[in-house]
Amino acid sequence: MPALSSTSKGAATRDAILDHAYAIACSAGLEGLSIGALAHAVGMSKSGVFAHFGSREDLQLAVLETAAQRFVSHVFQPAVRRPRGLARLRAVIEQWFDWVRHEDDGGCLFLAAVSEYDDRPGPQRDLLLRQDRQWRQALAKAVSLAIEEGELRPDIDVEQLVFEIYALPLLVHHDAGLYGYEAARSRGIRAFERLIEAAALP
Amino acid sequence: MPALSSTSKGAATRDAILDHAYAIACSAGLEGLSIGALAHAVGMSKSGVFAHFGSREDLQLAVLETAAQRFVSHVFQPAVRRPRGLARLRAVIEQWFDWVRHEDDGGCLFLAAVSEYDDRPGPQRDLLLRQDRQWRQALAKAVSLAIEEGELRPDIDVEQLVFEIYALPLLVHHDAGLYGYEAARSRGIRAFERLIEAAALP
Repeated sequence: MPALSSTSKGAATRDAILDHAYAIACSAGLEGLSIGALAHAVGMSKSGVFAHFGSREDLQLAVLETAAQRFVSHVFQPAVRRPRGLARLRAVIEQWFDWVRHEDDGGCLFLAAVSEYDDRPGPQRDLLLRQDRQWRQALAKAVSLAIEEGELRPDIDVEQLVFEIYALPLLVHHDAGLYGYEAARSRGIRAFERLIEAAALP
Repeated sequence: MPALSSTSKGAATRDAILDHAYAIACSAGLEGLSIGALAHAVGMSKSGVFAHFGSREDLQLAVLETAAQRFVSHVFQPAVRRPRGLARLRAVIEQWFDWVRHEDDGGCLFLAAVSEYDDRPGPQRDLLLRQDRQWRQALAKAVSLAIEEGELRPDIDVEQLVFEIYALPLLVHHDAGLYGYEAARSRGIRAFERLIEAAALP
């Protein structure tokens, strides 16, 4: 096995720190991240962690970026292998519901982060807002492709439909913890199909 | 002014403690409530607070009951003065959106509590679940009255419609912090009207 260069060793250490930081933030929130506790969890000194992330804020931003990468690879990448149009949009929704089932962790890091930062101007809020806008654009694109494919009416209000779709995983997330994931998912899928039916070409 | 009896003085003190506790829980969560910090905020000793609430758990449950009373008086009581049917249901939704605008506090106590307790069996989770069920029953009743009034189709799936309605304030809450309340509310109202239109008698 070839020796890792010091650059790739550095990148591997950074990834390992981010892995732990992501897990902590999933249950304690980004505000629950402390460099001290994180250093202890990864078996490094605090200064070792600081060598990779200059500040707690940099670490929080890096965790948000990690969360976005994981979200995209869980929710979007499987879907883009499906044919463009409703099949792809449906796959996005199914994977999104699966993302919010959160049985293995403390909850959805993004929802927690929105409630932590939406009323606190700063780089964390700016990044969250940028990520949310990008995600709505990706959804709008998926809806537009379904219009291009002739599956949805060309006169629908795409942003409004994206809003109505976006509400569903939020409630599936909320209900999964109270009533169980399968019941919540099944109501979510029915609600999505009704939205699509109302927007479909006759 | 007649002197308060010791019973009503006790009740007034209990209410004052709950007022402070509710405000703390709105920003720090029910798990962020500590008897010590609360005693300091109300200018009492810890044992004074314990005299009203036997334990931190009892206090958390009392705060949840307070939150439910406030929610009902904000969201439901203005609506029951409207004629039964769609007018009343619409008033419930408008007041519910207003409840989640949360400009004066740290967020919706219920949403925070669900994320704190949904995976932790115990009296807090039991109470949350009971409150959520009661709220869905009240919504189902409002929908049923609109069916009785001949405004909605008798064959609609009431629980499914309640689910689809419930999703909207969650997203209005989410979006209000990122994009502003008015924009979020306006999309929420349009989404609600589309749901109603699809469920209306032709």
